[in-house]
Amino acid sequence: MSQHILPDSPLSQLRQKMAQHAPQIDAYLIPSGDEYLNEYIPAHLNRREWITGFTGSAGDALITPDKAYVFADGRYHEQVDSEININEWTGVKVGQKDALPLSKQLQQFAREGQLSQLAYPAHCTSARQIKALKKQLTPLGVELISTETHWVDSIWNKDGHNRPAPVQKPIVPLSPNAAGQGVNEKLQSVRAKMKEAGCQVLPLNMLDQIAWLFNLRGSDIPYNPVFLSYAIITQDEALLFLPEERLPLETLLETENIRLLPLKGFTPELTRVSSGHTVWADESSLTAHTWDTIQNQAAFLHEALSPVTTLKAVKNKAESFGMAQAHIQAGVAWLKARYWLDQQLKASAPVSEKGFADKLYECYAEREGFISLSFNTIAGMGEHGAIIHYGTPSDARTWKPGELFLVDSGAQFATDAWAGTTDTTRTWVYGEPTEHQKYTYTHVLQAHIAGSMQRFPQGSTGAQMDGIVRSAMWQAGLDFMHGTGHGVGAYLNVHEGPCGISKGYSTPLKPGMMVSMEPGYYEAGHFGIRLENVVEVIELEGAEDSSNTLSTTGEPMLGFQSLTMMPFEPELINMEQLTQGQKLWLKQYHHQVCKTLTPYLNQEEQTFLKTLCQHECH
Amino acid sequence: MSQHILPDSPLSQLRQKMAQHAPQIDAYLIPSGDEYLNEYIPAHLNRREWITGFTGSAGDALITPDKAYVFADGRYHEQVDSEININEWTGVKVGQKDALPLSKQLQQFAREGQLSQLAYPAHCTSARQIKALKKQLTPLGVELISTETHWVDSIWNKDGHNRPAPVQKPIVPLSPNAAGQGVNEKLQSVRAKMKEAGCQVLPLNMLDQIAWLFNLRGSDIPYNPVFLSYAIITQDEALLFLPEERLPLETLLETENIRLLPLKGFTPELTRVSSGHTVWADESSLTAHTWDTIQNQAAFLHEALSPVTTLKAVKNKAESFGMAQAHIQAGVAWLKARYWLDQQLKASAPVSEKGFADKLYECYAEREGFISLSFNTIAGMGEHGAIIHYGTPSDARTWKPGELFLVDSGAQFATDAWAGTTDTTRTWVYGEPTEHQKYTYTHVLQAHIAGSMQRFPQGSTGAQMDGIVRSAMWQAGLDFMHGTGHGVGAYLNVHEGPCGISKGYSTPLKPGMMVSMEPGYYEAGHFGIRLENVVEVIELEGAEDSSNTLSTTGEPMLGFQSLTMMPFEPELINMEQLTQGQKLWLKQYHHQVCKTLTPYLNQEEQTFLKTLCQHECH
Repeated sequence: MSQHILPDSPLSQLRQKMAQHAPQIDAYLIPSGDEYLNEYIPAHLNRREWITGFTGSAGDALITPDKAYVFADGRYHEQVDSEININEWTGVKVGQKDALPLSKQLQQFAREGQLSQLAYPAHCTSARQIKALKKQLTPLGVELISTETHWVDSIWNKDGHNRPAPVQKPIVPLSPNAAGQGVNEKLQSVRAKMKEAGCQVLPLNMLDQIAWLFNLRGSDIPYNPVFLSYAIITQDEALLFLPEERLPLETLLETENIRLLPLKGFTPELTRVSSGHTVWADESSLTAHTWDTIQNQAAFLHEALSPVTTLKAVKNKAESFGMAQAHIQAGVAWLKARYWLDQQLKASAPVSEKGFADKLYECYAEREGFISLSFNTIAGMGEHGAIIHYGTPSDARTWKPGELFLVDSGAQFATDAWAGTTDTTRTWVYGEPTEHQKYTYTHVLQAHIAGSMQRFPQGSTGAQMDGIVRSAMWQAGLDFMHGTGHGVGAYLNVHEGPCGISKGYSTPLKPGMMVSMEPGYYEAGHFGIRLENVVEVIELEGAEDSSNTLSTTGEPMLGFQSLTMMPFEPELINMEQLTQGQKLWLKQYHHQVCKTLTPYLNQEEQTFLKTLCQHECH
Repeated sequence: MSQHILPDSPLSQLRQKMAQHAPQIDAYLIPSGDEYLNEYIPAHLNRREWITGFTGSAGDALITPDKAYVFADGRYHEQVDSEININEWTGVKVGQKDALPLSKQLQQFAREGQLSQLAYPAHCTSARQIKALKKQLTPLGVELISTETHWVDSIWNKDGHNRPAPVQKPIVPLSPNAAGQGVNEKLQSVRAKMKEAGCQVLPLNMLDQIAWLFNLRGSDIPYNPVFLSYAIITQDEALLFLPEERLPLETLLETENIRLLPLKGFTPELTRVSSGHTVWADESSLTAHTWDTIQNQAAFLHEALSPVTTLKAVKNKAESFGMAQAHIQAGVAWLKARYWLDQQLKASAPVSEKGFADKLYECYAEREGFISLSFNTIAGMGEHGAIIHYGTPSDARTWKPGELFLVDSGAQFATDAWAGTTDTTRTWVYGEPTEHQKYTYTHVLQAHIAGSMQRFPQGSTGAQMDGIVRSAMWQAGLDFMHGTGHGVGAYLNVHEGPCGISKGYSTPLKPGMMVSMEPGYYEAGHFGIRLENVVEVIELEGAEDSSNTLSTTGEPMLGFQSLTMMPFEPELINMEQLTQGQKLWLKQYHHQVCKTLTPYLNQEEQTFLKTLCQHECH
């Protein structure tokens, strides 16, 4: 196919830069992330989206002299080609047969003699990715060249491109009631872990780590209540780096041992404190630029997951309470929006995807403590439901009888007493479902229940749990091309590590960890089903029967407690497909939902809730 | 407790060496492995067993000036204290509460200021272990010192200790029919993978890698049909290093491009060929000494799993046929031994653990192609069954009514037409079982069947499968403290990587891989249950129904084919506990076993088999 690219398109300009560089650059990597390795990128830092048009939350781009690729995972296979200019860009659907992921594509280029110099912006790329690429490409003769600036910037900053200005909203302290633990106490825990490992220095690049550690929140980023910053922790110092124009910080810091410095001071300070010491180096949460800095300065790198990630994942009692409260508020909003939807249909008023998403937002906004969405609501009717991370609810697409409607939405809540983050997915039907819709919906529900009611011993991992959730679906020849669950932050990012449920998670699930449980099923061009609750890992000690204790170890077993409060869709459940145990779980869950939401609802909504809950509201 | 150690015990002598070294050694690591990182160690190289008395197949030892530890995993908790001299040694039961594993114990010593110098024999320790220890201990100020000789050798070699002489049995070519692939073809595959990764050199330290690659077998080691050797592969050369006294090799090598060299030439040759090149460095299958050599010489280390391990794991058609044949022969032996056992009981003749193990050996030995056991038979009656790797069947312990009897045994078979390795575990009852025995046995059987009948998409891992196998047991509060399955070699080691079924296995299961499926349940002091088949991963394409194909990817699903041919114990199965699907699987399995074994049995044995198979022999 001939290529129709204007000579002065941003892509052409980038290729000129590549050609003019000495040595000449054969490929330029545009990582999906930014300076803070954010998943949700502030508009002014979203170079990948600007140059490719692809709006997905993940997916690196790669430019060569004659090709340009965007690598999209299973969540975005349906979406990528509709967003990019396919005359300029190739959407690579990673996971599909013959679609090479980025690293394999680069290896192939190298073997074919087309790649000698690969350049990348080190300050916007994760150390893990660059370490892996160096490992794979160096033996094939490829030199990896880190560029001091992001080359897309030099094009985007030119007149006429209207690069957005940075958003800087206030940085506010998290209420002590909601945090449940003071900054000094958190610093103490972090420093104890550093000491245990023999580390003197811990650099932090990721914003949720910093927000958690300092009990501060912001809104510089869409959906994530964080603020642009870096930090360095040593045994004596806690350095917090902020954009210069924010200093001095208007917010009173809880402890006086925190030094505030401008962002540009991060690398010089890190150079100073690292010199000759052992530095905690978490390749998954540091940029390649930070990694290079500590590698050049430190006596030894302690390569391990950041202690902040580990501590943050296990929620304390206040966080656990806040998450439960947030999910109650979200549940009320969902139920009210769902009731509204029902009324619209009864009145034969058309409802569009966007119409429902807006209504849901309105219902959230009425709830106590609502701050913002925790991600862009996915609201996909019919075939749109099969687009796993369907980006923008359509104003034109209305719900038609016989169609499924998949809604995946979450919100951030914070009050003076509690705070939390929610993430819920439900799938509904308009009118009478087909047998196939019921069969597949019920399979997804069974997978959801199988995971939710599973007991497991200490040390069990998300990979084991993932198999358990998928088992019956696999037996029926069904599957879904995304993980079963991700970690969820406590009034923080809706996606956080290190725990989750998928074959990649070897982190043991511990009491206080919170993950989503979201099996699904998708038929491209037809419909999508996903059923998602956020669940908390709990100890089953003290429960009614003795089988909770493993006779082999004597330790209490663990289980999941569902935080999400929203009934499943009775019309889509084929009760005969469920096992006795699954029926009991569903009955108890619906009973709990009914009991919890009823006080917040008016009479009509209560009646509607009872119907959805199959009258388990006694 | 006061310590009663003779001043000139081997332990005391080792401590003297530690004290006399400059700098003084605070701890000496005695790894479980040898120069070839063997799991089953030739007697003359088994320093850990000699000095500690502990005969387990895994478990490092650690000597400090005033303590001496053996670290035993879950398989050996019941066994370790009975084998060591508890006045000298402490058996650490890793996995139990408060029992620190080796690395954590060393870290604790370091933090307590008791550890500055840790010494280890680099040529007998895996690179992986030393890399991990360096990572954990260097920041705590510990220096790791590799000793050129194994310090236990200098004591063991002294008069009076009767160190066994090396066993050197003939090295023989594997028949081309059994191998299914020539050496040149295998070298070609390995070199293609090296080229793909940009590697010029591949060192091999592990004996099963070498035996597989060169289509040679030996019997230098108990149970494993391998021979003492090292190897180096480059694009032009294939160097095979053997003990000097074996050269020239009496066996005709299939290809002339293999150079034979004495073992002591390995390090100098590796130094020569590595210099300035990229070397394939698999930390899990190289010794720390080999790692140091290539690290000092190579331009770049390509750190990845050995291509030989990856290729060897996927059995070709000839290997798959050989494994099936071996399991038929083993099945016949098992059935005949089981029939004999039944006759003994009917005649009220006492049967000891050793008595049955000997009978089973006799029955194996009568089979076509029998070479040796593939590991020391475990035959544990009553409470001995709870000792997961119960070492030595007792001559004195006889089977009493009401007791369970756990037998775990495998064998090596090779003929000119086929070859294979087996591994089977069954648990039987004498007379009437208790309800609890039936309940737990049936749970283990259900776990076995759940795994065996699971379908799964390409890319699924052993960790996911492990969760599926344990799920129903966990729901009932039951578990077992060992993996669900290990890879099995084709007329090679009974344990091989990289695939397996346990939470640690992230390797995708591929058609042609073979793993054991062996859930269990153990009550210390009472009884043990384990049910093990070897299963082959197969493509389900072409099977009768369309649900075999995942609608999301269009790729055929995978499943397991049981190779082991031995009925389960009808007296111990509570059929009502089984699901319909599980009952069907059991019926079909017993039908298959009956059909397969019947031609090899006499009339009485056939009748007995029919009873065991619950008359599914139509």
